[in-house]
Amino acid sequence: MQLNHDRLLDSLRQLAQFGKAGTGVNRLAFSPEDQAARAWLLEQMREAGLDARIDGIGNVYGRATDVERAVLIGSHTDSVPKGGWLDGAMGVLYGLEIARARHEARSSLAQLGVDVISFADEEGTYRALAGSLSFCGQLSATDIEQATNTDGASLAEVLSHAGYAGQPRARLDPGRHLAYFEGHIEQGPRLEVENQKIGIVTTIVGIRRSRLSCLGQADHAGTTPMHLRKDAGAALIALCARLLERFEQARGELSVWNIGHIVFAPGAGNVVPSSAQALVEFRDPRLPVLDRLQGEIDAAAAELHGRGGVTVEVEHLLGIAPADMDASLVDTLEAATRNRVVPAMRMPSGAGHDAMVLSRHLPSAMLFIPSIGGRSHDTAENTTEEDICLGADILAHSLELLAVQKGLA
Amino acid sequence: MQLNHDRLLDSLRQLAQFGKAGTGVNRLAFSPEDQAARAWLLEQMREAGLDARIDGIGNVYGRATDVERAVLIGSHTDSVPKGGWLDGAMGVLYGLEIARARHEARSSLAQLGVDVISFADEEGTYRALAGSLSFCGQLSATDIEQATNTDGASLAEVLSHAGYAGQPRARLDPGRHLAYFEGHIEQGPRLEVENQKIGIVTTIVGIRRSRLSCLGQADHAGTTPMHLRKDAGAALIALCARLLERFEQARGELSVWNIGHIVFAPGAGNVVPSSAQALVEFRDPRLPVLDRLQGEIDAAAAELHGRGGVTVEVEHLLGIAPADMDASLVDTLEAATRNRVVPAMRMPSGAGHDAMVLSRHLPSAMLFIPSIGGRSHDTAENTTEEDICLGADILAHSLELLAVQKGLA
Repeated sequence: MQLNHDRLLDSLRQLAQFGKAGTGVNRLAFSPEDQAARAWLLEQMREAGLDARIDGIGNVYGRATDVERAVLIGSHTDSVPKGGWLDGAMGVLYGLEIARARHEARSSLAQLGVDVISFADEEGTYRALAGSLSFCGQLSATDIEQATNTDGASLAEVLSHAGYAGQPRARLDPGRHLAYFEGHIEQGPRLEVENQKIGIVTTIVGIRRSRLSCLGQADHAGTTPMHLRKDAGAALIALCARLLERFEQARGELSVWNIGHIVFAPGAGNVVPSSAQALVEFRDPRLPVLDRLQGEIDAAAAELHGRGGVTVEVEHLLGIAPADMDASLVDTLEAATRNRVVPAMRMPSGAGHDAMVLSRHLPSAMLFIPSIGGRSHDTAENTTEEDICLGADILAHSLELLAVQKGLA
Repeated sequence: MQLNHDRLLDSLRQLAQFGKAGTGVNRLAFSPEDQAARAWLLEQMREAGLDARIDGIGNVYGRATDVERAVLIGSHTDSVPKGGWLDGAMGVLYGLEIARARHEARSSLAQLGVDVISFADEEGTYRALAGSLSFCGQLSATDIEQATNTDGASLAEVLSHAGYAGQPRARLDPGRHLAYFEGHIEQGPRLEVENQKIGIVTTIVGIRRSRLSCLGQADHAGTTPMHLRKDAGAALIALCARLLERFEQARGELSVWNIGHIVFAPGAGNVVPSSAQALVEFRDPRLPVLDRLQGEIDAAAAELHGRGGVTVEVEHLLGIAPADMDASLVDTLEAATRNRVVPAMRMPSGAGHDAMVLSRHLPSAMLFIPSIGGRSHDTAENTTEEDICLGADILAHSLELLAVQKGLA
């Protein structure tokens, strides 16, 4: 199966123009740049012979037209603020390039179709993994109504403004889809450090996200004696500091956590904050550890609630259990690397991916390629062209092996 | 001297419509609402017979036309986010109403003019006290070039967009101005608690403001092991928590402090913050205490600098020394309250005011009226109409006493 490496790289560079920010992209879900990228991708899919459309949650979905069975290949094309050009985008364009090769009959996948998808808002600008959850029937209309970004803008409104809201939402088709494949940069340092070219994902860590809210009273920061204040900002600082200590004590070996966003209101230097919020995210491959860390959040909040006249509230916004990849597909990916004599290793994914949603409904597999310096979620994120193309070739060869296994070669 | 109480209250209500936010106002310096309020005030001054204009920093300044000597009465009409309707605005409209009464020859101030001014950006959206500093020749072009708001917008640009930048900047005229008077709500609980109607300010506390900046590296919050991170957000939380402890230890009896604004960048839940900033403000009537607290900021920053690969920087943005009011004017205000048998007390001001700038160039005095519940810098800020009018009457009577003292009656 012959992929056109120049065309793959050229498409990646074209996509990186949407929301271009230095060497990276600023393409938050449903921003004008993200919508323009989706319109461009729709055209690319149609030129690849796919029956393509943008659905009611913003997923760009293209189906092979000449088959009854297909593999689904995809990822996402939205980014975090000032993110990298490959994160998500590469996995979608792997699918696009393989679909193009198949369309040109330059592959042995005559009986095995290749459907391609870009899932909406994987990064959680409004609702993490919204597109893949919708595709798997796990996102209700209520979920959409309640989802907002950190500025309070609602997902329902942006879907309506983008013109997506009116469309039907595409759904997984168990009678059609044999498997889901997602290629991605590692977003960590391991492959580079261990001189491996391909990472074969065995499991994806669970992710949870909570919002901490402190509510006090606005007052003049000069005339109000310290002992009479209800300072929501000072309370949030104490709460976050305490929580970081508790996490350090309660962590598992592979646990990670992050306080990535804090906002004080009203937000002036000479006004005692009336409210203050922080976004806390934590991950671990093991459910009991996730439960333990979530317990630390509740305990820290209870410990500080009411102190200094400030009330503390905790909302658990997101909970995704650890997800195992399909053992047989893992073997298939590994066989493909052996056939091509490419140094590869099995590893867990510390990052969440759409595959963690798909894997609960369909045999799923993920393939990693190295991230230079392990950098990601930053414009400095990058990978060599050689590694990008090698990952696409391994994925394509895996499909050939799968077609043989399934008697569809 | 007869003031028109209904007209004073009506003007206050009209001004409160600009940027109205519930029972308060949201009229940040140089916002469209603030600019509209300045245009309205300009017309009011002209109708009061003043030679009025808006100067190059946005000050609205009206001069009596028929005299060689005048008192200057004013304050500011900008607000903090979601601030009160009287803060600043009342002191300006006290001057306006007294100028109206004089214009109608309903006062004994034939030889003593009343100049009225609304100083720009007292609250420090871009540069605290910008208008009064400019009026006293203490704000350089470089100061204006360097001033920005918390979003990074520049003062020079907003002055240009507002059309103020082209105008000359008005200046204090020592040959003309006998004294500066500022009426204001107390913004604290003392008058109400002690059943006093008028507060006669003896001194204004010193204010300092610093920006704490932590600089780390953005990384994926799931794939980057905790020990390999350079987490600017966690560093700022630790720094702020440590600083609040140090302030508690080093404080003077009357010291107050506030961390009113924090921002993390890039600001996503799944990205390790690459930078994090906090705005710290502190006040005290005594210089040695202010120096000691500033030393605590530098010490806390030095203590945490470099920890976890994060650099810490401190910028001292604002430093205003404590300011004593003029002893003779304090006596005059007190005499006015005695003549009218109004319960009054001498007190320091915990809040900064334009008077702290003016007092270094001109004999200055401030008069406080009670704040209900001591609330301010919040839409809940309020004062009874009776107290508002009483304060205006006491100020007007003080001018009559001053005119006699100066042989200008």
